[in-house]
Parts: sequence; C-alpha cells; structure tokens
Amino acid sequence: MAEGPFDWLDEHAWRRGRAGLTRTLRPRAADSPVLDLASNDYLGLTRHPRVTQGAASAALRWGAGATGSRLVTGTTALHAELEADLAAWCGAEAALVFSSGYAANMAAVTTLTGPGALLVSDAANHASLIDGCRLSRATTAVVPHADPEAVRKELAAHPGRAVVVTDGVFSVNGDLAPLRDLAGVCRRAGAGLLVDDAHGLGVVGERGTGAVAAAGLAGAPDVVTTAVLSKALGSQGGVVLGPARVIRHLVDNARTFIFDTALAPAAVGAALAALRLLREEPERPARAREVARDLSDRLAAAGLRTTVPAAAVVSVLAPSPQSAVEWAADCRARGVAVGCFRPPSVPDGLSRLRLTARADLTDDQIDRAVAVITTTAPTAP
Amino acid sequence: MAEGPFDWLDEHAWRRGRAGLTRTLRPRAADSPVLDLASNDYLGLTRHPRVTQGAASAALRWGAGATGSRLVTGTTALHAELEADLAAWCGAEAALVFSSGYAANMAAVTTLTGPGALLVSDAANHASLIDGCRLSRATTAVVPHADPEAVRKELAAHPGRAVVVTDGVFSVNGDLAPLRDLAGVCRRAGAGLLVDDAHGLGVVGERGTGAVAAAGLAGAPDVVTTAVLSKALGSQGGVVLGPARVIRHLVDNARTFIFDTALAPAAVGAALAALRLLREEPERPARAREVARDLSDRLAAAGLRTTVPAAAVVSVLAPSPQSAVEWAADCRARGVAVGCFRPPSVPDGLSRLRLTARADLTDDQIDRAVAVITTTAPTAP
Ligand SMILES: Cc1ncc(COP(=O)(O)O)c(C=O)c1O
Ligand SMILES: Cc1ncc(COP(=O)(O)O)c(C=O)c1O
Repeated sequence: MAEGPFDWLDEHAWRRGRAGLTRTLRPRAADSPVLDLASNDYLGLTRHPRVTQGAASAALRWGAGATGSRLVTGTTALHAELEADLAAWCGAEAALVFSSGYAANMAAVTTLTGPGALLVSDAANHASLIDGCRLSRATTAVVPHADPEAVRKELAAHPGRAVVVTDGVFSVNGDLAPLRDLAGVCRRAGAGLLVDDAHGLGVVGERGTGAVAAAGLAGAPDVVTTAVLSKALGSQGGVVLGPARVIRHLVDNARTFIFDTALAPAAVGAALAALRLLREEPERPARAREVARDLSDRLAAAGLRTTVPAAAVVSVLAPSPQSAVEWAADCRARGVAVGCFRPPSVPDGLSRLRLTARADLTDDQIDRAVAVITTTAPTAP
Repeated sequence: MAEGPFDWLDEHAWRRGRAGLTRTLRPRAADSPVLDLASNDYLGLTRHPRVTQGAASAALRWGAGATGSRLVTGTTALHAELEADLAAWCGAEAALVFSSGYAANMAAVTTLTGPGALLVSDAANHASLIDGCRLSRATTAVVPHADPEAVRKELAAHPGRAVVVTDGVFSVNGDLAPLRDLAGVCRRAGAGLLVDDAHGLGVVGERGTGAVAAAGLAGAPDVVTTAVLSKALGSQGGVVLGPARVIRHLVDNARTFIFDTALAPAAVGAALAALRLLREEPERPARAREVARDLSDRLAAAGLRTTVPAAAVVSVLAPSPQSAVEWAADCRARGVAVGCFRPPSVPDGLSRLRLTARADLTDDQIDRAVAVITTTAPTAP
C-alpha cells in the first residue's frame, strides 16, 4: 500500500503516548459539581449574572458575530466603547481590542519591531509572545527569567531599535516580572517595553488595574501593555493598551487585526459588564489575591513547596512529571480541578500543579481544596 | 530631547498617510440604515433570531467565557457537540474548534509540516495561511495563483514530506481553487492537501457543505479542511476538519490550540444554531450564490468588469487605487457599504470593490445596490 501523507502522524502519536504526553479533551457539563481551581476566572465573573446578561444582550442587539474584520464591518459602537473604557481604566492613552489575547500579542510584537530590530524576550514568556518573536523577523535574544541585568547586556550589545518583551505575571508560576527595573533598563537604553499583563489585569494593583499600573508605568510613552478579556474579565478577546501612535500603527499594520474577524458582540458586551462590576466592587481583586496567599500559606504549612503568589496563581511543585499527573488526577477524582504542568510547558523544567484562586471561593471551598490537595500529595522521593 | 523608542512610528504613519494608505475605524450603530454588501454574513444568519438566541442562551447557561484553554477547563459539552455536528455536516472524520479561523489556519499549517518539510502555497492565500507558513519553519514555495502544474513541479523538485495549501474560495476575488486538479497532483506526489474553506463553507456545494465536499473530497484521508464560524455561520471562531489522526495531532501539538483560551460559549451556541438552520433551510446557500450571480451579471451588463462568482463574493475592478477608494466612499455616502481592496492587499495588484451577496437580500435591495454602484462608478481612464 502506498504511504499516505499523514501516516507519519501515527508514529509521532505513538512516541508521545509512550512518553506519557498524550493530551486528552475532557468536556465539562454546565452544572459540574467539581470545585474549579484550574480556570483563569480569577474574579469569578464569567458566570456573574450581570456579565452573562451583558453577553446575551449584546448578542440579541448586535448579532451573534461581528460580520467582518475591524476595518470593514466588524467595528461596532460597542467595540469603540470597550476600547475607551479599557484605556481609561488602565490609564492608557488608547486601546485596541482583538479577537484573542494570542492575536493581540502577535500583533504588538510583530508591528513594534521588524527586520533589523532587536527583541529581548524573557525565557518564561507566553507562547503567543514567542510566536510573535518568530513572526517578527527581528533578531530575538532570549534572556534568563526575570533578569534585568541580562536584558541590559543584550541591549548594550545591540544598539539600534529594540523592544523588551515580558509577561507581567508569569502564567505558570504566577510570579511578577521586575517591571520597574526593566523599565529603567529600557529607558537608559532607549528601548521600548512590552508587557503582557494577561494574568495581572483585574487582579494586581489598586482596583485591579494591572501590573503595569502597579509599577507606576500606566500611560508611559515608552511602554505598551497587552492584556486579555478572557481571564479576570470572564469573557474572550485581547487588547493592546498604549500611546495613541502605537495604537494607530497597529490599526494600519497588524496582520492579526486587519485580516481577522472582529471579536463577537457578546464577548464585547460581557467584558464591558465585567469592567463596570470592577468599578463598583473594587474589593474583588484584593479578595482574589488574599485567597491565593491563603491557599499558598496553608499548603506550605502542610509541607508542600509553593510559590508566594503575586496575583491569583499558586504553583505547587511535584517531585516528577508522572507524580504531577497522578496528583492532579487524584484531586479531580475527589472533586477538585487543578492545573498540571510538565516539561516542555514549564520554563524551569519542574513539574507542578497550578492552582488559581478565585475571588468568589468561599472559606469552606478553600478548606476543601487544601484538604484534597494535601491528602493526595505525593510523598517526596 | 532624547529619542523615544516609538518615535519612528510617526514617520512611518506620515509616509502611509502621504501614500493614501491610512486606515480608519468606523464604528457602526446597531440599527444602521446602511445596506451591507461588505460583510461576510453570507447567509444573513448573524442577526437571525434563532442564532442570536443560540448565543444568548449559551452565555446565560455556560457563562460569558470558556474560563481556560481547551485542555484545562475550556472544553464544554457544547464545544464537543459543535465539533461532532461540524464533522458530520462536512463529512469529515473529526473536527476541532478554535477561537478564530486565523488560529485554526496557523495550527493546521504549522503542525502538519515542520522543519524539513515542503509547503506549497498559492500566491493569493489568506494572511493567516501565510503566517502559518512563516511559523512552520518548513521550506515554503509560493506558486502562481490557481496553477496545479506549478504545484506539480514544486512537489517533483522537492521529494519528501509535503503539504499543498490553498484557499478553497479566494477571499478577495471570490474565485474557486482548482481543488480536483490539486488533489490529483497531491495524490500522485504523495503530498497532503490543506484547504481553507472560510468562504466556501455554508455557501458552496450541495446544502452549503463547502468547496471540499463539492470537489468530492469530503472525508478523504489526505485532505484537511479549515473553515470559520465567523462568516456564513454568523458567529466567531475557526475549525479544522479532517482525519481523526490529524485532529489528535493538533490536540497534542498545535500552539494556538493549547495556549489559547477556548472559544466563548456564546459563539459556540450561535454556530450550533446556524448549523441547525442550515439543515432545516438547505435553500439558503443556493440563494446566496444566486444573488451573487445576479449582482455580477447586472454590473457586467452596465459595463463594469466583474468576476463570475463561484460563491458569494463578487469583485469589481477599479481603474486605480484612488478611484477604488473614492468609489467605495461614494457608495457609502449613498447608503451602500462595499469592501475596497488595494495593493498590497490584492494578489494581482489590481484595485477593486469587493461585494458580498447575502442570502437575505431582497430584490429591491439588489436593485438599489446595482443602481448606486453603477451611478458612482469611475469612468475608465
Ligand atoms: C500570559 C498569557 N498571554 C496571552 C494569553 C493568550 O490569551 P487568549 O487566551 O485570550 O488568547 C494567555 C493565555 O491564554 C496567557 O497566559
Ligand atoms: C480565507 C480566510 N481564511 C481565514 C480567515 C480568518 O478567519 P477568522 O476571521 O475567523 O479569524 C479569513 C478572514 O477573516 C479568511 O478570509
């Protein structure tokens, strides 16, 4: 029999399977009784009646889809309103909404650099920033995680146009980037700073205005922020926040903006409703951070190796990739969903559980989570 | 004053402005009286009450966001239902839904090739396929538009793993790819065929099952199809359809699947409702094609240079980039929204209006559109 063009996939799958790396989709039910410590719904807004109603009303009034790209028919007055609200809330001059955070990151990274420029990228950056680096055709220097001195050296070694790119809150470990130091290094070298605040917006800083604002960098002329509507804001989509000239440049040049259907009205409406709630209930972000610290403290007190959370993500080390997988499965079997990260999806090669705090977790739920995670913990080898 | 890292953007913007290439966002109102011949809402479903209700109900029941990536918490039973429905409807073994068509295309192109492989890409392919080629690190050979013989030569010149990638219906011109011939060329060379049917699904072929099905290639073991939920289905999102082993491979490897928040429930619910409508009202796709042919015939009869539409897109040539822009503006001033494409967004260097037929256009609306487009037409130079 002749070989088919996709036969090689079977061997590839077999090798992944043997290494225990096969990934499985587990559809969940609408009324699942599982206690969720795995999602990124940090503020517990995705099922808040005002947020779901914001989505539903927008779909009924504006249609289920945006009908075209932003520059053709896809920009509704609702998109413009969300952009104005996000910019005002974060203290940025302007904002541009994308259909995903992934698209926003690719847009910002590619259009702010280009061939001949230098991109300095933290080793633990999110996949979408890395894909942006690859697409940009800029020279990319990957520097050790959270290391401003390494950044300084790269900038000094490559004079000319440069942008430093970093997660604000790192997605797997939940640690905060050294934004003030990075901004100082960038300023002295005349480089731009691009911060992906996907896990910071809505959680970090006063009223949840994000890691960039918390570092005193809101509205800075040399800082660009990307963020998502898909985590703390409980919706879908991404946004770039920054100087008006950066936003104008994205409108004119960003491929994932120009050649992509605009975000659906329902997602825009939900994000608008979430922002309004955040304004009215500014205690939510602090509560999410408090739950995270509580979780982390209690797991550490039980002898587990946890991170000190800067936002709502708590990372708990596991002795091995296999034990991490089994641990997560044991938790799930006892009704607690936790994230599980193994190489190559971890920056430091260490397998771990990833727990996410939610502002709406009750004390009882936190007790239950701690009990399940500690009783199922693998004994150190 | 020291130079800022983003100062160069101003000169860039100035140069674009001087060349007449500045792009402008025009937010539209929910009840705009403008006659829409610019969107991709080919079947007129995006504001259909059952589709908007599908979106609204899904948001209210499942939440405004999916809360996480597909492999963590983002897969709901609704996503699984949509994937089963799409696969069944298109005659594919399996389907995988993405947050956008852009993400689906990048996923399919990158994971089905890789370093060492050959990608043969039509010169008129969509930006997202091109970005996929760039990210894949495969050797990419760009071939002249719709030229199976050029594809054959590239495949012959580069033995080894190869995938040929093409739009099914080309987005700007609306012409159909020579899919049968391409499939034959691929088969003889042992190459895979990847078809982006974004503008074909829901419009082309019996009951709108798409250009791949219309070419007799549904369910073929060596053909993979991508499509969108954001055009004929009136929602948002993308999908890859193909052999089960291809879909499994994407789940394990595609970065825009693994590291991206899942599509929001509202968009999933809307697409499910649109598919159900298509099953019940199989005459909609034929009506969209009929409107397109009618538009094209009548504009041609008035002396304009139009394409013969294979789907719902009609392209009308303009004498120059400037005249195309003015023509589109004149149409809009008279209440008819049309698309306008100029270099570098056109594959052949020719500026044009892009009109989209909708299955729900009335005869009166078509009359009005033809009247406005012909009376505002630039006189040939
Ligand atoms: C740090 C970071 N940036 C960007 C993204 C992408 O955002 P989205 O899921 O909205 O595409 C994610 C996760 O999904 C993330 O964790
Ligand atoms: C041919 C083609 N493929 C893919 C896409 C991207 O799909 P989406 O807009 O859903 O991201 C588009 C347009 O948007 C397109 O025209």
